[in-house]
Amino acid sequence: MRPPKLTLVGAGPGDPGLITLKGIEALRTADVVLYDALANPALLDHAPQHARKIFVGKRKDLHSATQEEINTLITSLAFKYGHVVRLKGGDPFLMGRGGEEIEVARAMGIETEYIPGVSSALAVPGLAGIPVTHRDVSKSVWILSGTSSSGGVTEDLKLAARSSATVVILMGVSTLQEIVSIYTSEGKAGLPVAIIQNGSTESQRSVSGRMSNIIDLSAKAQIAAPAVIVIGDVVRFLDPSTKEATHSENKNQLR
Amino acid sequence: MRPPKLTLVGAGPGDPGLITLKGIEALRTADVVLYDALANPALLDHAPQHARKIFVGKRKDLHSATQEEINTLITSLAFKYGHVVRLKGGDPFLMGRGGEEIEVARAMGIETEYIPGVSSALAVPGLAGIPVTHRDVSKSVWILSGTSSSGGVTEDLKLAARSSATVVILMGVSTLQEIVSIYTSEGKAGLPVAIIQNGSTESQRSVSGRMSNIIDLSAKAQIAAPAVIVIGDVVRFLDPSTKEATHSENKNQLR
Repeated sequence: MRPPKLTLVGAGPGDPGLITLKGIEALRTADVVLYDALANPALLDHAPQHARKIFVGKRKDLHSATQEEINTLITSLAFKYGHVVRLKGGDPFLMGRGGEEIEVARAMGIETEYIPGVSSALAVPGLAGIPVTHRDVSKSVWILSGTSSSGGVTEDLKLAARSSATVVILMGVSTLQEIVSIYTSEGKAGLPVAIIQNGSTESQRSVSGRMSNIIDLSAKAQIAAPAVIVIGDVVRFLDPSTKEATHSENKNQLR
Repeated sequence: MRPPKLTLVGAGPGDPGLITLKGIEALRTADVVLYDALANPALLDHAPQHARKIFVGKRKDLHSATQEEINTLITSLAFKYGHVVRLKGGDPFLMGRGGEEIEVARAMGIETEYIPGVSSALAVPGLAGIPVTHRDVSKSVWILSGTSSSGGVTEDLKLAARSSATVVILMGVSTLQEIVSIYTSEGKAGLPVAIIQNGSTESQRSVSGRMSNIIDLSAKAQIAAPAVIVIGDVVRFLDPSTKEATHSENKNQLR
């Protein structure tokens, strides 16, 4: 019997080539892999044949495991089989509830390890042609979740809309109208915004425009989750048409 | 003669096991590798023997290549030798000036590719025991540079100090006093903060405390660059002693 262990592995943004060497090493010694909807299933091929591969992702209209059920699974499978690899899209500690999984396992005396991953929040904009920071344009990036545990967007988004940071919103497609209305009430209807669906994969699609027309554009393009929303002047590197108006508007913003 | 090409590759936070599969593939076909001070030189072993390996990092007290010189090198070496891999610590588009390098190369008609990397901003806190987000504690993360092009900290840091985001500051050790004074003037002298030097490597060291004592603590521990500063309640996962006071303080912060 192997000693119980939990390794959180960041699977990266979707492209199976964007996992790390250490992530693959962990998969090679897995007895169980618990994987997310956002982790590419092709990565399961790195795990041994004998390893149990269990899908625990959240998918619309299907029963999906609750976080409590996942926490229980991790613990019981680690004691039963040994090395449990928890394969999570992006990085396990960015909106991934990896912190909770580590806490629960440790409380049960299980050894834990964290192997970071390439975060969708930075890589998906970059692969779509948008550097999240750029010396002349934006010097910081604020990453938020589009949905808070209480439903709507988080309070911090109002502060983010006032900042000059590049704002990246994960899981925000369903709250797009609320996001747009926050920016509009801050006088930023002209701010460039892009939405990138299935970033880093062959089915990557994106739309870009301004706050004032992004709801229409994304509806026409039928953009759906999973998607990353990028807000700020750096969007002009993907869509140069957003450049000029932004510039004059920015002067007002910065006053 | 191979066609000129520039590939920006994210080397990850320092541990050579934290580069991606695609990053290694790019290195394997490199004719030239231009590498940073923050990229682990062990990664150069993935490049062919014939490839030229050129250090272009910035190191204190030594002449280091300016960004303009690097841009010129990329272009001239790509036309002379073919595939130039620009190996950059962390992710190339986060504070890395990768956007500029891509722009310059494209303007010269050189094909470009971006291979994202594991960012130090998320991975270094995580490897030190601090998840940058946690459902019960912090729902967003704001990543800033500690030094602006004009010298001091960026204006956005004042807004960041008012937010409830986890704030991660890269290249901030030399401006620590300024950072502390901004938080102190926001009434947040009790906020937990950690500084992690050489994160993800064998020489990783960290200190943690509160805004009120972090300058002393980091001076005593002789913490030096490169280091990542993490500010916010999530620091309690590394240093539980920062927990209680933070909690009561947070109540005041939020309104």
